[in-house]
Amino acid sequence: MSEIAKTPQPPYYAVIFTSERTEGDQGYADMANRMVELAEQQPGFLGIESARDNVGITVSYWQSLEAIKDWKQQSEHQAAQSSGKELWYSNYRIRISKVEREYGI
Amino acid sequence: MSEIAKTPQPPYYAVIFTSERTEGDQGYADMANRMVELAEQQPGFLGIESARDNVGITVSYWQSLEAIKDWKQQSEHQAAQSSGKELWYSNYRIRISKVEREYGI
Repeated sequence: MSEIAKTPQPPYYAVIFTSERTEGDQGYADMANRMVELAEQQPGFLGIESARDNVGITVSYWQSLEAIKDWKQQSEHQAAQSSGKELWYSNYRIRISKVEREYGI
Repeated sequence: MSEIAKTPQPPYYAVIFTSERTEGDQGYADMANRMVELAEQQPGFLGIESARDNVGITVSYWQSLEAIKDWKQQSEHQAAQSSGKELWYSNYRIRISKVEREYGI
């Protein structure tokens, strides 16, 4: 159950992951839950937001570019990245961005 | 029907808009479609991606901070922002970020 992330004062970093899924689950939901669980344990993790209808958008928030790099190289995450390309996603984009301002209600 | 945006080489900017909806449509879907239509006509607009389940995430991409500011101040968009606070959203966050790197399949 994704909700709005409670992030600190900027600056911090956002990884915007937009994807289109292949047909069928093929272990996708379990993997996605597991990746959130693992990301939350990473140093520098600040929060995550996720939604899917025609496309899926997952935005994860991080303290630094180094924290993002460490997460990209986490071993179980690397296995998921490989399966993602082969099995779960027909298309995806990853955008690394620096959050400069934040506001809301 | 949202799909993955075809954005140029970074750097460019992303507005990450995450929201929780109130109950009922109350004109929301029409407004949301109209805002995409209007955003696409704005100078400096590069693309938009959107998904909603428990939360809604809309990421719009822009050439510059000035283009984002101009869009924020567009008159019909300003009316929608007011109604958004009063009517459509129980909570939201807006994060302005600079995309530094992009990659994908």
